[in-house]
Formats: sequence, structure tokens, C-alpha cells
Amino acid sequence: MYPRSIQKLIDIFSKFPTVGPRTATRFVFYLMKTKKEEIEDLIKSITNLKEKVKICSFCFNSFEGGNNLCKICSDPSRNKTLLCIIEKETDFISIEKTKKYKGLYFILGGTVSKLKKQDLEKLKIKELTERIKKPEKFGIPDTKFTEIIIATNPTTEGEATALYLERILRPLNKKITRLGRGLPVGAELEYTDKETLGSALEGRK
Amino acid sequence: MYPRSIQKLIDIFSKFPTVGPRTATRFVFYLMKTKKEEIEDLIKSITNLKEKVKICSFCFNSFEGGNNLCKICSDPSRNKTLLCIIEKETDFISIEKTKKYKGLYFILGGTVSKLKKQDLEKLKIKELTERIKKPEKFGIPDTKFTEIIIATNPTTEGEATALYLERILRPLNKKITRLGRGLPVGAELEYTDKETLGSALEGRK
Amino acid sequence: MYPRSIQKLIDIFSKFPTVGPRTATRFVFYLMKTKKEEIEDLIKSITNLKEKVKICSFCFNSFEGGNNLCKICSDPSRNKTLLCIIEKETDFISIEKTKKYKGLYFILGGTVSKLKKQDLEKLKIKELTERIKKPEKFGIPDTKFTEIIIATNPTTEGEATALYLERILRPLNKKITRLGRGLPVGAELEYTDKETLGSALEGRK
Amino acid sequence: MYPRSIQKLIDIFSKFPTVGPRTATRFVFYLMKTKKEEIEDLIKSITNLKEKVKICSFCFNSFEGGNNLCKICSDPSRNKTLLCIIEKETDFISIEKTKKYKGLYFILGGTVSKLKKQDLEKLKIKELTERIKKPEKFGIPDTKFTEIIIATNPTTEGEATALYLERILRPLNKKITRLGRGLPVGAELEYTDKETLGSALEGRK
Repeated sequence: MYPRSIQKLIDIFSKFPTVGPRTATRFVFYLMKTKKEEIEDLIKSITNLKEKVKICSFCFNSFEGGNNLCKICSDPSRNKTLLCIIEKETDFISIEKTKKYKGLYFILGGTVSKLKKQDLEKLKIKELTERIKKPEKFGIPDTKFTEIIIATNPTTEGEATALYLERILRPLNKKITRLGRGLPVGAELEYTDKETLGSALEGRK
Repeated sequence: MYPRSIQKLIDIFSKFPTVGPRTATRFVFYLMKTKKEEIEDLIKSITNLKEKVKICSFCFNSFEGGNNLCKICSDPSRNKTLLCIIEKETDFISIEKTKKYKGLYFILGGTVSKLKKQDLEKLKIKELTERIKKPEKFGIPDTKFTEIIIATNPTTEGEATALYLERILRPLNKKITRLGRGLPVGAELEYTDKETLGSALEGRK
Repeated sequence: MYPRSIQKLIDIFSKFPTVGPRTATRFVFYLMKTKKEEIEDLIKSITNLKEKVKICSFCFNSFEGGNNLCKICSDPSRNKTLLCIIEKETDFISIEKTKKYKGLYFILGGTVSKLKKQDLEKLKIKELTERIKKPEKFGIPDTKFTEIIIATNPTTEGEATALYLERILRPLNKKITRLGRGLPVGAELEYTDKETLGSALEGRK
Repeated sequence: MYPRSIQKLIDIFSKFPTVGPRTATRFVFYLMKTKKEEIEDLIKSITNLKEKVKICSFCFNSFEGGNNLCKICSDPSRNKTLLCIIEKETDFISIEKTKKYKGLYFILGGTVSKLKKQDLEKLKIKELTERIKKPEKFGIPDTKFTEIIIATNPTTEGEATALYLERILRPLNKKITRLGRGLPVGAELEYTDKETLGSALEGRK
């Protein structure tokens, strides 16, 4: 019922994550009212995204700049004996915000629920083991990882993936750790599952 | 913490209606994974929106095409004695979907909560009265409106706006109507406010 | 894990509508802290409920008092030519609050989704037709109903029940009406289903 | 508008935790339809609650039985060197369900947000220190607590209370511990606050 140009854009926005047709429609009417310069800014920014953003050759994080390594991988002050495996790019931001971790990262690219070959291929398992074995080949010279932190989410999928990673990484003879379990800020014992509360009791200090 | 090109686009998407920084971030990572052709399609569609979509000279609806009137205003089969005043473009889609209305529309451009001069200026009051008085001047020849339907939302703002419109339109000596009040599909008497239930009782049939 | 007296009461409260085990537990600990006199007041009130509350012999509403008719059925100022059929007791409170209805009520006792014999038996169909035909037999002398308002909810079940009632009541040759459909207070056209919006357009005034 | 006996009971139920007038009304109509024997069972259970349930002279838990100590405090197999301080009775159920704790409990009776004298009086501080110092005086002979676990909720109030307790208990020269912080089951790094994620990183194992 909308003019073709409007409907076309509604359809495109409807494919964005979390966006349905109604929100997509609001986006289009928002753009209709937006000034020409701001529209041009949006278009240029989308173009830039594809042209300027690169993927780090060690950790697979996205970055902008002249060389092959991202800001963290090329930062001499980071502790290069620690490697933290995370599911996806946004998790790295969450960990950086804590200011409690100074090592390197590796973005696994997802999680698996079942260990089907098809699903496992989405994960960068081969790339991970290569980088742990020979970091110098991927731009991180003079180092040897001593601890590998598997920081997948403590969800069903994240747990299955962590167990799989432990199995894969065991032969490399590194210390393998997982994020600590316990009560989060703001929790109430009454509404906490017994597994979490059990971990909190065992991990009391 | 994100590369500049990514952060820039997160900031732009964060201004979209209903979008916060977290959703904006998901949009950007979605675009990062999107194929080049689809990105080009998005950019072209945004460009088209600004270039091809026009505003109807009678009803202020957006449309695409060669002349000055939208599809509905230029449709000879519509009943040109009825004019339905709506708040915004999406309301016209809602009414068309009912297939119960065959007249013309006028998009008011919003609602007012208080009758401040500043707020009233956002509404197309002058344009409305001109089009009711002389539709032929705006591309609708040989007609005379006999009924003006004020179809603002039955919200506080919509009601205030409707009362104001009634006052403005009364001197034009047209039949002025409002959408019927009553129980919507799926309502339960137990949870219905007394004003709505009162209307439903009075409007029983 | 709780002492037996506590667990027993948790189990009983868990059967209350909308109450799960956790809320039931909160109820019990609330009662544990409640003063003796208040507990006695609660027990006395529950006992009173069963002893003092009666069911009106005409409309099936619950009431307290010396005779057989409830306050409304025995009120000489009510309009005894109007009968409003409602699903359940709480609906009568909703309608009374509008102060737009001065007739009598009849509590049907529920709704049916499908016209199964078993379901239909839950409704007081026979009692309804008897009271419409001969109100004097049930304590309402010198009257003749001229309009029967079927005020079931406009939900799927309520609609099915209303259609069934219309079929049953048609041979009685009374005016049969239904509550008016339309937009409720606070509605927005954009989020209103097309059936409701269609009714609101047809019922404009 | 309801008969007096109904309204009275609605008013009483409206004081129950989480219950508003509408739910209270549903409770009353539920009781109206409930069989006589079930009503009698409810009344008897409420009476029993007040008559049979006692408070444990050591831990302040409620229990039923012949002596002065609850089931846990009188269980010879519990580890009587551990004492876990909890806010309220339901927290003890949560901890017992984990099957990871075999010591004794002490129910503090609440939390404080600010260290006002008035608020602090609600907590059983004096009773707590007496029981830690001389458990034999309160029915737990031949024991010496070696670890006091402060298991208040990790909420703002629970934290303030825990800090206050630590200050009070320090002179007793016992090991004082707190429940471990970290990621709960099902958490996602992306939505975890930085304090919790920081604890999870520090507590990795």
C-alpha cells in the first residue's frame, strides 16, 4: 500500500536484527523527515564501514588502521601470556570495560549446541589452535601463552562449546580456565537457581 | 572502544526511533556481515526515498509518480464528498485495511496536548480549511465535502486536537463526525474503563 | 522442607487463582507475622462468606440479607423492561460503575467456546428463558422485558456464546441487542485491529 | 458494591503480599465456589499455623515438634563449626536445595539500607553474637564455630548489612566469609554488569 520506494526500504529494514515491519516503517518515516545532510552522513558511514574496517589477523576483531593487527593485539603493554576466547565481538567490549583483564583475545565466531560437523565449522577452531601453537606466525612474536581462558557464556550453548574447546585444547598442555560462577550483583538467594547458589557457596571467600 | 567507522554508525543508528546503543551496535555488526550487493541495495533505496517520493498536494500523503496527487486523491472511484482527517501517514494504512472507507484523507501532521500557539503551528490547520472550502484549487475538482470525519486517536492528545478541530471547522457548516467508541475485539468487561463501557452500552445495537 | 503445618497451608494457597508455590509461601509467612486478632478476623470472614452470602433467585448474583432477591432485583427504581445478560458476577460491577444502565441483570455463569452439550450445561440457559418468559414466577412481578442485552465479552468465546444465545432467544420475540463496538479510550489507530476500526468507522457519529 | 461479607474478605485479602483488590476479589469468588470441606480445611490450617508452629531457640527458623530446636539445629550429622547468616526463612530453603552446605543457620530477620538505630533494631544482632560466643547456652553443646558465612543478598541493602555484620563480628576472631561472586547459570557476558564480570574474571578457575 506504500509507494514502491518506501515499501522497498521497509522490506530492507525488516531484515535488520530485532526489527519487524512496524518498526521498519517507523525507520522509513524517520528518514523521510531527516535532513539531506544527515542522510548523506548515514550513506557515507555505511560505505566507510565496508571500506575502512578490517579484521585483525590474530584475534579476528574488527579495527581501522594501517597494519594487520588490531589496537589490542599491537599494544606492547598487554600481557601476551594470557589468551581469552570469546564468542563474539561485543563480548570483548564487556570484558575490556571491567579493566580486570590485560591479555589478548580470540573471537571464536559463535557457539554450538550440538557437536554436529556443520555447526562446528562455523567456529574458528583451526585458527585458534594455530594461534596458540605459533602466535609469531600471526603477528605476535616472542610469546608463549601460559593460560587460555574460555569465556563463553554460561548458557547451554556456551557450556557445550566450552567443553568441546577443553577437549580440543587439552593436548596443547596449557592451563585452561573458565570464568568464575557465583551470584551476580543484585541477585536474591530466593530467586537464584541451585547450581549458581551451589557455586557461590563453594566459592565463598 | 569500537573503531571510529563502527562507532560513527552506531551513533547514527542510535538516533533512529526505538533504537538504543545496544541495538544500534547489533545493526552495525549485521551490516558488517551483509553482502556487498545488499549494502548497495540499502544505500540506493535510501537515496531513492529522498529522490522519488513526493508529497500529495491535496492530502499530504507521500507517493511516487508523475503527477501532483497521490493514488487515492487521483482515483475517480473514491467518494469525494467524505474527508477523513488523520494524525499521521500510518493511520491512513490502518483505515484502508478495513475496506470500510471510500472517501478522501487529510494528514494533519500530529496532535496537540495543549492549545499553545507553538504546538498548533505543527498542525496543518490552514491547509485543511483551504482544502475543505475549495478542493478544486488543490486538484480535486467538481466536489463538495458533505461530511468531515475527525479520526484522531481517542487518546488525551487526540481528543484535545479533535475538540480544537471541531471548533475551527464548525463555521464551515459541514457534518462533522468522530469514530465510534465502544469495546474493541478481544476486550473483557472486567478490564474495560467505565467511559468505554458506557459508550458501548449507549451504542448497543 | 517446611514444617508440615506450613507446607499444608502453602499447598492450599497454591490452588488459589493466580497463586503459585512462591506466592503461597509468602502468604504463609505473612500470616505467621500477622497478629492473632487479625487471623481471627480472617477466619471469621471466611466463615461468614459461606454462612451469610446468598444467591439471588432471579439474577443469580450473590447478596446478603433477609429476602430472596438481591439489592438490584428488589430495587423499585430499576427499569424492569431491560435485561442484561452477563458472563460472571464481576461484569455486573463493571457495568454498574458506568452509571449508564438502570435495568436488571442475569448472570449466565460462563461462556462456551464450542457448542458441546457438556459445555452448554454450565450455562444457565433454561433459567434464563424461564425468567424472560415469566419474571413474576421468580420474584419480579408486573413486568415484561422489551430488550435483552447480550453483554458477553467480545472475545472468541464470548462471541460464540452470544451467537448461541441469539439463536435461543429469537423465538421469544424480544428486541435483542449487543454492546457497541468501536475504539476504546486510549486506543491508537495504528495498533487497532481492522475489525474494531471498521466498526468505529461504521459507528461514527 | 459487593455484599458486606464479600467486601470484608476482599479487604483482608488485599493486605496479603502482592495482592491487589482485583486479585482479592478473585480469591473471594474462588472461595464462594469451593466446597465446604475444603473451606474447613483452610480454616483449620490457618489455626494450626498459629498453634503448632514454633520458633527455633537457636536459629529462629520456624518448625513443628516437641523440643526447642528445629530439625537442622537438632540434627547430629550437621557440621556444627559452620554458621551461615541469612536474611530470611526462605533463603534457608534455597541454600538447603543446593545440598552443598551442611552447617547451621542463623536467621537475621532482614537487612538495613542505612545504619539507623531504628533499622538496626529489626536485626537480631545481639542474639547472633550471643549464639556465636556461647552456642551451648542456646541448645548447641560441645561446639565452636570456626567459620561464619554472611549470606545476605548481593543487593545494595544486603551489602550494607554484610559490611555492618563484618564490623560487629570481627572482634570475635572467627573466619568470616561471603558467598562467591561471578556469572550465574544462563548469563550472557554482553548483558552482565562490569562488577560481576570483573569478579568472574578474578575468580576464574
